[in-house]
Amino acid sequence: MIELVGFDGDDTLWHSEGYYQHAGVEFERIVGQYIDVGDAGVRARLNAAERRNLALFGYGAKSMALSMVEAAIELTDGRISAADIHRIIALGKSLLEHPVELLPGIAAAVAAVAAHHRIVLITKGDLFHQERKVEQSGLADLFQRIEIVSEKDSRRYAQVLAEFEVQPSRFAMVGNSLRSDIEPVIELGGWGIHMPYHVTWEHELEHNVDVAHPRVQTIAGAEGIVVALDRCSGATG
Amino acid sequence: MIELVGFDGDDTLWHSEGYYQHAGVEFERIVGQYIDVGDAGVRARLNAAERRNLALFGYGAKSMALSMVEAAIELTDGRISAADIHRIIALGKSLLEHPVELLPGIAAAVAAVAAHHRIVLITKGDLFHQERKVEQSGLADLFQRIEIVSEKDSRRYAQVLAEFEVQPSRFAMVGNSLRSDIEPVIELGGWGIHMPYHVTWEHELEHNVDVAHPRVQTIAGAEGIVVALDRCSGATG
Repeated sequence: MIELVGFDGDDTLWHSEGYYQHAGVEFERIVGQYIDVGDAGVRARLNAAERRNLALFGYGAKSMALSMVEAAIELTDGRISAADIHRIIALGKSLLEHPVELLPGIAAAVAAVAAHHRIVLITKGDLFHQERKVEQSGLADLFQRIEIVSEKDSRRYAQVLAEFEVQPSRFAMVGNSLRSDIEPVIELGGWGIHMPYHVTWEHELEHNVDVAHPRVQTIAGAEGIVVALDRCSGATG
Repeated sequence: MIELVGFDGDDTLWHSEGYYQHAGVEFERIVGQYIDVGDAGVRARLNAAERRNLALFGYGAKSMALSMVEAAIELTDGRISAADIHRIIALGKSLLEHPVELLPGIAAAVAAVAAHHRIVLITKGDLFHQERKVEQSGLADLFQRIEIVSEKDSRRYAQVLAEFEVQPSRFAMVGNSLRSDIEPVIELGGWGIHMPYHVTWEHELEHNVDVAHPRVQTIAGAEGIVVALDRCSGATG
């Protein structure tokens, strides 16, 4: 029997990556006024800046905003105007301000799971921004606990399971990222329900988990969650 | 008897505000090359930008860095150079990079309290940055739990106490900020041990707590913590 079900937030409960990709496109447009390296070149330099800053900034919109400003100055050899840097800061702010839009069917699916299991939201990123999104989602009350973490690795999942006094074999995680939601949970001996989102942040593409693993199921959308959970239970019980 | 003791992080366990004030001085120097409003004017505009962004950005070094860039562009009417904006970003990075320096006597005091009480670290700010500081402090293992919160209000303290199943009257909080560490805890019925730091962020100066309150004690430094705790116990027990 599965006792505890974890849900990821961004791109599992609500849309997120699309907003970041849109900000990336706008960034290219602004910086493209100064240089001619082609869109791929600009995006690659931004990704490199983000990656370099990850160990110092962590994840989230404020980190992306600071990396965008830094990359814009470097890419243009300091020729970018203050007005355009102001536009880039505004892009970062728009990421923090967009309303929370739930994925289709997710509210019903989360409620259905909550009716028979304890559920926990385990989300990565900026504490302040994630708290706001949780609050605006209208789903907060269904969760026993909201865990906002700086990194989703097996150590962090093990801490959460210890706090709930649940064995990994009785835990299933629902999420869109193989790297952050599935791989570390499988590593611990738990179950993964992978619900791919139509776009994935480049950083999340790196993983070693095999989607054909017997404890991993891939579903097309929220309506598949309950059935997938039953299959985990069948296999363990 | 006090059962649970909370410790604040910034300016209670380790130095923090001094670094922010230094960044503010450097910011004034950079912006002062472009305008002549006097130091107080520049600082006031930066404070105003930070305050305005607080609801969107939350606390921390990344928030300050973004507010500094925004304020610099506004203060100079867009005349600031990209190179100087790059310097401002570097200031923000230096806030995230400085080594953790414990306050005098705090390591011994925390260990002494931990020998007889459960202790919890309750700190506000950027999740990623605070986690790094906790790790570098060398004190992490003494704490039952590390709570990094976006705001320190009585609702958040009540949640922490509920998770520990501790009554407010059996909880004491040690911290430098009357606004964040003492006032909300007194409001709940808990005990406050106020250990002022030599500088205080302007934002933290706003509070309504009376330092002569019977459940508030003010101490000069870490060596006063154990004695102050005994007084709480005496009064309740």
